[in-house]
Parts: sequence; C-alpha cells; structure tokens
Amino acid sequence: MSVPVAGPVLVIGSGLLGASVGLALRRADVKVWLDDTDAEALAEACARGAGEPWIEGAEPPRVVIVAVPPASAGAVMARACAIAGAVVTDVTSVKSEPLADALDRGADPARLVGGHPMAGRETSGAASARHDLFDDRVWVIAPVAGSLRENVDVVRDLAVTCGAVPVEMSPQDHDRAVALTSHAPQVLSSLLAARLLEADPDAVAVSGQALRDMTRIAESDPSLWQAILAANADSVADVLDAYARDLSDVIRDLRAQQPSVVDALTRGVQGRRRIPGKHGAAATPFDVVPVIIRDEPGELGRLFVAAGDLGVNLEDVRIDHVLGKPSGLIELSVRPESSARLVDGLRVRGFDVRA
Amino acid sequence: MSVPVAGPVLVIGSGLLGASVGLALRRADVKVWLDDTDAEALAEACARGAGEPWIEGAEPPRVVIVAVPPASAGAVMARACAIAGAVVTDVTSVKSEPLADALDRGADPARLVGGHPMAGRETSGAASARHDLFDDRVWVIAPVAGSLRENVDVVRDLAVTCGAVPVEMSPQDHDRAVALTSHAPQVLSSLLAARLLEADPDAVAVSGQALRDMTRIAESDPSLWQAILAANADSVADVLDAYARDLSDVIRDLRAQQPSVVDALTRGVQGRRRIPGKHGAAATPFDVVPVIIRDEPGELGRLFVAAGDLGVNLEDVRIDHVLGKPSGLIELSVRPESSARLVDGLRVRGFDVRA
Repeated sequence: MSVPVAGPVLVIGSGLLGASVGLALRRADVKVWLDDTDAEALAEACARGAGEPWIEGAEPPRVVIVAVPPASAGAVMARACAIAGAVVTDVTSVKSEPLADALDRGADPARLVGGHPMAGRETSGAASARHDLFDDRVWVIAPVAGSLRENVDVVRDLAVTCGAVPVEMSPQDHDRAVALTSHAPQVLSSLLAARLLEADPDAVAVSGQALRDMTRIAESDPSLWQAILAANADSVADVLDAYARDLSDVIRDLRAQQPSVVDALTRGVQGRRRIPGKHGAAATPFDVVPVIIRDEPGELGRLFVAAGDLGVNLEDVRIDHVLGKPSGLIELSVRPESSARLVDGLRVRGFDVRA
Repeated sequence: MSVPVAGPVLVIGSGLLGASVGLALRRADVKVWLDDTDAEALAEACARGAGEPWIEGAEPPRVVIVAVPPASAGAVMARACAIAGAVVTDVTSVKSEPLADALDRGADPARLVGGHPMAGRETSGAASARHDLFDDRVWVIAPVAGSLRENVDVVRDLAVTCGAVPVEMSPQDHDRAVALTSHAPQVLSSLLAARLLEADPDAVAVSGQALRDMTRIAESDPSLWQAILAANADSVADVLDAYARDLSDVIRDLRAQQPSVVDALTRGVQGRRRIPGKHGAAATPFDVVPVIIRDEPGELGRLFVAAGDLGVNLEDVRIDHVLGKPSGLIELSVRPESSARLVDGLRVRGFDVRA
C-alpha cells in the first residue's frame, strides 16, 4: 500500500458506508472526524472506533467525505466546500445528479471530486460497518470539469488507503457504466419475473436454475430501486433502448426461422467473457468440477473439508436445484491449475466426480 | 413408489437420457431392451447395466421410449408404432414439432404420448448415465389429441418408476411453458451479455454479482440453443413480444420520470415468488444468513462442518464475488425454522455472522 491519505478526514454521515470509511482510515492511522445529524448513529459509529465527533473549531479536515442519502448529497457537498482548502468527495451510487446539484449550490469545482465505492449492501447502519468493506473493491473516482488534478489524486489516495482499487471516469461515464452493469439488469430481471404472474402454475412448475438465476435480483426492494432508476433514468433508458432494438431483431429472426439467431447467442458468449476477473484483468476461466453427493447431513461439509485438505481454493460453489430443493449435484469452480488435483483427490476419497 | 410400469420397455437411443432411463427402470426390476444405430454406444450402455440389446423377435416391448436427437424423434416414433400394441413416448425437450411429425408419418395417435423429463444436461453420453438422474425431477407427460387415457397412464407409471414427478400438459402448453421458463430467458441473457461487447473496459470493470447471475446462461453453446429455439420459435417469440411491450412501457416511463416504474418492479417481486418449491408447492422463503469468513484455506470447510454439526441443512450457498474473485461474504440459505439455531451456533464457534 502507498502512503496513507493526509488527514484529518471528516466523514459526514455515519451509516454503513460512512462508518466503514472511518474504520478503514483508522486502520491506516489516519485522523478521522465524524459528523451526523442523528446523534445516536454518530455515537454508535464513534463507539465502534470509526472516529471522533467533529467539533467546529477543531483541526480542520483536509478531506471531507459525504456519506449521506443521495437526495441530500449535493447540498451537503456544497456546504462542505465552505471548509477552506478541504477536498470534498462523496460515496453516492449515482454521480451526475448529486455533483451537478452541488455545483448549482455553489460548490467549488476545483475542490469537488465525486466518488463511488462499489461495496456490498447486504446490511446497513454503523453496527454493520467493517474496516475491510472496501478491500479489493473498485472505487470509482469521478472528477467534475473543474477538479484540480492534485485534488483528484487526494481522493485516489483516500480510496487506496481504504483498501480499494481506484478507477477514474467522468460522472457521465460512471452513470452509463452502472446503467449497463447494474441498473438495466435490474429492470430486465424484474420484467422477466413479472411475466411469471400471468403463467399457469404448471408452466411455472417446469422452471429450473436458469430462471432462478435470471430472477434473483427481482427480489430487490422496489422503492429503493425506483429511486436509483429515477436518478439515472436517461442512461438506463439508453441501455434499454439498445437492448430493445436487439430484442426486436431476434424476435423477427425467430418468426422468420432465420439462422442469424445464432449470431446473437454467439455475441452473448463473447460479451460474457468480458466480465472482469481480479483487478480488472480478463475473466479467469475457472474449471467447473461437478460432484454428486449423497443426500445426508454433513456430506457437503465433508466435500469442502476434502477440498481444503487438498489445498484447493474454491472460487465458487453452485448447488443445483430441483423443484426448489437442492439436488445432489454440486459444481465447484476452481482455477484450471487446481482442477486435476481436486478431481483426483476427491475420487481417492470416494466422491462421485463427474468431470 | 407405486407399482412399476409393466415391461419390457424398449429404449431407442443410448445416450445420457436413454441409458439413464434404462438404469432407472432396471433399478425397479423392469425388463429393458436397448437399441441404437451406434453399436459402440449401445455396447457401452449395456455394459453399464442399462439393459440388453433389442433383437427383432424377442419378447415384444409394451412401451417404447424414443431418446434420439430432436430432428429424428418424429420419424423414430412413427416407426416404433409398427410394434403392435406398444405405447410410444419420447424424451425430446420440445414437444409439438416431433409429435406432429410422428403423426404426419403415420404414428397411431391412440398409442402416442409425448414426454419430457426435466433432467440435467451437465454431461452427455451413456458413460455419464445415472440411475437417479430423474429422481424428484418433473417429467412432463404430453398426450396428443387421440392418446388413449390408459396409454397416458402407462407413460405416467413409467415416469414414476424412474423416480420422477409426472406433470401432464398438452404439447402446446409444454412448449409455451419452456418458452417462458427456459428458452426466452436464454435469449434475454445472451442479449444482455452481448451489450457488454460495445462497452468501455472501465465500464465493464464496475460489474458485480447481479450481472454475473444475469449472464451465466449466456455461456451456453450457441448452436445447441439455435436448434432448441428454432424448434420452438413461435412460442419463444410470443413470450419475447410480451416482454418487449413491457420493456417499452418501462423505457417510456423512465424517460418521463413516471413513478409507475415501481409497479413493474413490484410485479417482479410477486412473479419471483411464484417459482415453485418442492413438488410444485409455493416457493419456500429461505432465510439468508450472511457470514464473513477469513480468507484462509479450510475456512469454508470449517463453516460447512459447523453447519452439519448443528444439524442444519443448507438449501443454498452463495459466495459473493468482488472483481472476479470470491470475497469473504458467504450467504447460507436455510429453512426459516433452522435459521436461529445456525446463527447462534456459528457465533458460539467464533464465526462472524451478519444476520
């Protein structure tokens, strides 16, 4: 890791993201001030060691991180620019709107640099904060038109100090990127799941793992997602428009029994390969080792212990589902160089490997 | 299990499905004849115990199961009807076309009953055949217009003897059902993955688990899927047309900043809930227990052994992925009644449970 970002850092907002930023910075011995309009949330974040309460007149922060809900992020960033000399950034999941709002409210463009750490959201609140929440995660750095280069670099240092991998792009490019990789997929999943509402129960009974995978994110909170989609509506609509044109072509070719449908499927195989592996490298093509296990308690544990004994790191695990319950088929994804060792070692231990 | 189907049963085609049907019937002591134009494949299926080679003049079969590639299924079913008195069925993944083809070629409608066991396809060939391939799987029984009821019941008995759960529907209903739950999702996944081809590498770098789930089946073999889609083109196009209309509405509402987008998302949540649980029951709402594990060999094994020791059956396991590599977040899906026992037991054993 490089030199930690120079503090103190003021974190405004002490929810999951704000408190986790505080913990990550404290891990690197950076001085952290915390502020929150909710005194109870602030006290909890301080108690967890994420920083100390910010008091007007204390040593002024060199960086301010705004970690408040998207609707107020612009206003809070503009107010934070009143702190002389401080670089101001945020952690909001959409970038163009909050940054434009901050500039409209008089934020200093030279000191304003947007940010978006791509960290998990399985829980919320300071109680769930983790010092390692950002480790190895992408942290998008989104400068505005007037951001000074040295201030952009301060926010990059901040991301690296938190353990993240900074990726720089404009607010507009960021919003187009998440429209493609996150927001449009949400809409597509929800619309597919919604199609099941009109289906006969017997028709739904023939569904398998593919439909489960394709509709998993359709379980997400509709009001949360409505707010996200509203804040990035045009970029999402652009992606969906392009998708709708491709879909219309495939429908036409299907009706006409045109073999060109295979081209769309082939492009899909190629596109899937672009999803990145570690640190933005090309996707690692893991080997999949299928194993049939007996439907007995402890069998899964025995399998994982065997993989551990063999020194094989499991990159992914997939349990096949039949009629909503797990079947005996387990798919273990491993690096290609480990695959033969795993197959042989599991067979020696009596496992039914189908490789 | 009820009384096994009355044999002998002649299985034509000794690939994965044909040989597995043979093994499943032999498990129930049903007499099985096997036939295949490929003498080597036939010998392998016989060597694995899936049945004995069919010889003209032997005890005539009471049921014939056609397990050949879709393109020749109709012709082979028509020829099989020449065996006096035999009920003729198949295992083809599309139903209307092969059955219509068989009838066109003079098959006896009274003795013709389509079938489609919804079994895994992770491997192929008799060498991969399993006696338990159909256990607890849905086996669609698709009578034609003239099928005699008693012959439909014979095919139901056959499915039950193989360990499967028979679900009866017309060939047209079957094809519409798989269009909705399998064939259209394949197209939708491929088109989303194909959209990544035009994206900037930085844009793809911000992708997460949602995009991974939504594009997993886009890895499937294009030529195999082209054949499946071609054989069910109109039903698939009907599903995709309805989907395209919904998509167009959402795009319009997004552009107009209409809050009605939340309705589409809400219908998605409701539709997802219709995906069935065990034996066609409503989906079991599993509890998800998130656990953070240390990135050390054997930690995953220790977690599964602990779950086994606690007597908790894991219904599903999801490993969160960050930048293409697994993070420390593991999501364990368990029945609601087991959830508290798992959470408490894991905590006692020192695991970092985030429930």
